Amino acid sequence: MLTCNKERLDDKIKTFSKFGDTGKGGITRLSLSPAALEAREEFCKRCKALGMEIKTDDMANIYATIPGEEGLPAIMMGSHMDSVKQGGNYDGILGVLTGLEVAETIVTEKIEHKHPITVVVWTNEEGARFDPAMMSSGVITGKFDKDIMLASRDIDGITFKEALEASGYMGNIENRATAEKYKALVELHIEQGPVLEAEKKDIGIVEGVCGMVNYEFTFVGQADHAGTTPMKYRKDALFAASKVIQYLHDELDKLDSKLVYTTGRMNVSPNIHTIIPDNVKFTLDARHQDPEVVKQVVEIIKKVPGVVEKCEVSCKKLWARNTVKFYPEFVHYVEKNAKEYGYSSMKIYSGPGHDAQFITDIIPTTMIFVPSEKGHSHCEKEFTPLESCVKGTNVLLQTVLDIDKS
Amino acid sequence: MLTCNKERLDDKIKTFSKFGDTGKGGITRLSLSPAALEAREEFCKRCKALGMEIKTDDMANIYATIPGEEGLPAIMMGSHMDSVKQGGNYDGILGVLTGLEVAETIVTEKIEHKHPITVVVWTNEEGARFDPAMMSSGVITGKFDKDIMLASRDIDGITFKEALEASGYMGNIENRATAEKYKALVELHIEQGPVLEAEKKDIGIVEGVCGMVNYEFTFVGQADHAGTTPMKYRKDALFAASKVIQYLHDELDKLDSKLVYTTGRMNVSPNIHTIIPDNVKFTLDARHQDPEVVKQVVEIIKKVPGVVEKCEVSCKKLWARNTVKFYPEFVHYVEKNAKEYGYSSMKIYSGPGHDAQFITDIIPTTMIFVPSEKGHSHCEKEFTPLESCVKGTNVLLQTVLDIDKS
Repeated sequence: MLTCNKERLDDKIKTFSKFGDTGKGGITRLSLSPAALEAREEFCKRCKALGMEIKTDDMANIYATIPGEEGLPAIMMGSHMDSVKQGGNYDGILGVLTGLEVAETIVTEKIEHKHPITVVVWTNEEGARFDPAMMSSGVITGKFDKDIMLASRDIDGITFKEALEASGYMGNIENRATAEKYKALVELHIEQGPVLEAEKKDIGIVEGVCGMVNYEFTFVGQADHAGTTPMKYRKDALFAASKVIQYLHDELDKLDSKLVYTTGRMNVSPNIHTIIPDNVKFTLDARHQDPEVVKQVVEIIKKVPGVVEKCEVSCKKLWARNTVKFYPEFVHYVEKNAKEYGYSSMKIYSGPGHDAQFITDIIPTTMIFVPSEKGHSHCEKEFTPLESCVKGTNVLLQTVLDIDKS
Repeated sequence: MLTCNKERLDDKIKTFSKFGDTGKGGITRLSLSPAALEAREEFCKRCKALGMEIKTDDMANIYATIPGEEGLPAIMMGSHMDSVKQGGNYDGILGVLTGLEVAETIVTEKIEHKHPITVVVWTNEEGARFDPAMMSSGVITGKFDKDIMLASRDIDGITFKEALEASGYMGNIENRATAEKYKALVELHIEQGPVLEAEKKDIGIVEGVCGMVNYEFTFVGQADHAGTTPMKYRKDALFAASKVIQYLHDELDKLDSKLVYTTGRMNVSPNIHTIIPDNVKFTLDARHQDPEVVKQVVEIIKKVPGVVEKCEVSCKKLWARNTVKFYPEFVHYVEKNAKEYGYSSMKIYSGPGHDAQFITDIIPTTMIFVPSEKGHSHCEKEFTPLESCVKGTNVLLQTVLDIDKS
């Protein structure tokens, strides 16, 4: 079977790890920052060297294309090159670099294909500099209002619009990815979780992105002196919150074992060791691929009593996301190709969001996951062995060629 | 029976409420601040008008004395005049003003007494401007090192020494309260809790100050992504902390019903809704009058397992205070006098600390509590009805006269 070049991929990963290098094994490459622009320049240089045609759209998304037969829509691979602060060398960038390696293999090996092949770079996926995440794929698929996005400011007060104009990568709105121009998107990404490693699988066949709900609970008690208030008179908002955390675990654990839920943020007020807390807030994030299970989660949330340990309890939905299912035919190609290469694989749903989940609304899309060592991500310890990256690249190559033939 | 003057006491409370008035029903009268110096000036002016002799010691504690028979030690009444930020008009200051009213009654009614009668003002009881609380009673009883106290800084970087020297109230070390010079201290104070009001009692016969322990628990888990980490791989430090809070409630509730315990401060890290908390700390403050019960609390704390929900649990003692018992003869006078005036009363232990608990180490001491409306204290809503203040003052007057005769 066709394979990509391990040394070339290694060189790509090492080269791009320099752009925003923190010196501690990771990178800080915020969207449209100098480090991100260096990475874009290197990407474009390499694409041009392969004879690819480069276009950018009005959100500075980059499309680098190997020509195909006239009139046919292109097949896209790619992801993003921006990182969070003190992030790793794999999140996003690996999807771009494996796409570039597939393109290089097709060009240098002169592999026949009918459709144009495009490597795409989405602008500002992380939302770490300009809120929100997945901004540009969101704009071109109609999820976000462009004018609101342009007004988003970084911590120095610079707007996304200013950064966009200064970048040199702002192109024409007519270059946006559309269903007419693109037949497919395949995004390779690190798993960002521990499942593939724990299950000893090379490839994650991503069936979709989990639906999720995010709620905030508020507990209102009474702030009294720790030393003077008998227990029977107390309204301890932290004790009430602890009770509800236990209730949520008890009830949610009865649901499907693939459900993940997290009480990640808790703020206690006044947060003084000698005062009984009178206000506690915590968030509950819950994700599952099956909308029915997410509905059961919401039912459990709704059953939390209005008064717990004499404290008033309320909760509100901060946001929610419906389950996204990827294009079954492409998912099948990934599964088939992993098998044919002799790689171990498993079906998986993505917990985090990706540009692919927005693009799939307008263009048939799927994703390929490769393992994350110990599940680390969004940190400098983020790591995927080169061997795993190569396996993912090979599956990506063959999947693109299968789509080309389909 | 002898009684104090209600209108005069009302005038005192209203007058002193102006010094540091927040305009919202309370005061901010930090130690040795301009507002506190105004209060000291008014206090000294009123004492001088009664013919009292005023001395200050090296910690700016003020001793205003009505002469008695030569060679006899004085009987002290009093408390502090500083407040917390946005505090109330009763905490501390009521002990000074009721002492002043007793002195005024003795002087104007020409009530016979053998011993000199002193009204004392302790400097920096709250510790709200200069840490720690009860600083000056602590220094003169050898609890705190004076040099360390002098170096304590407020948020503007001013040292206690600088504030002391600028105040005009720094006197001679020889004026400190000692067992030779003082026969007794009686400190009237608001309860700062809801018990007297709830039990419909006029007077709290304070037998002592509760012993206490303060521990900090730390839970170390693993910070993983909320969307990618299956429940079985998680080490959720907040869930572990919630379990231990429940355990503490379950076990501590089995101990004596007078035990009070509080988990007042909790900090969650990284405190992001999409990340599993990997570090949670909370404090446990527990108080009881019986050292045996405090010992049982510590045994329960020690039984918390080292690993809970796969998170490492540790705990350390932040501080502790032994139970302080007041002078039984004086406690008895308070009880007898409340009864003789026809006031309802109950025995009580103080949860919070007071200057009296330090002074009792060198001079026989007791306290008298009056009710706090709804238990509010250290806030602008702090309130004790005038009628309750008068009852407390009468008991204070008669108790001082009983001590004089004893």
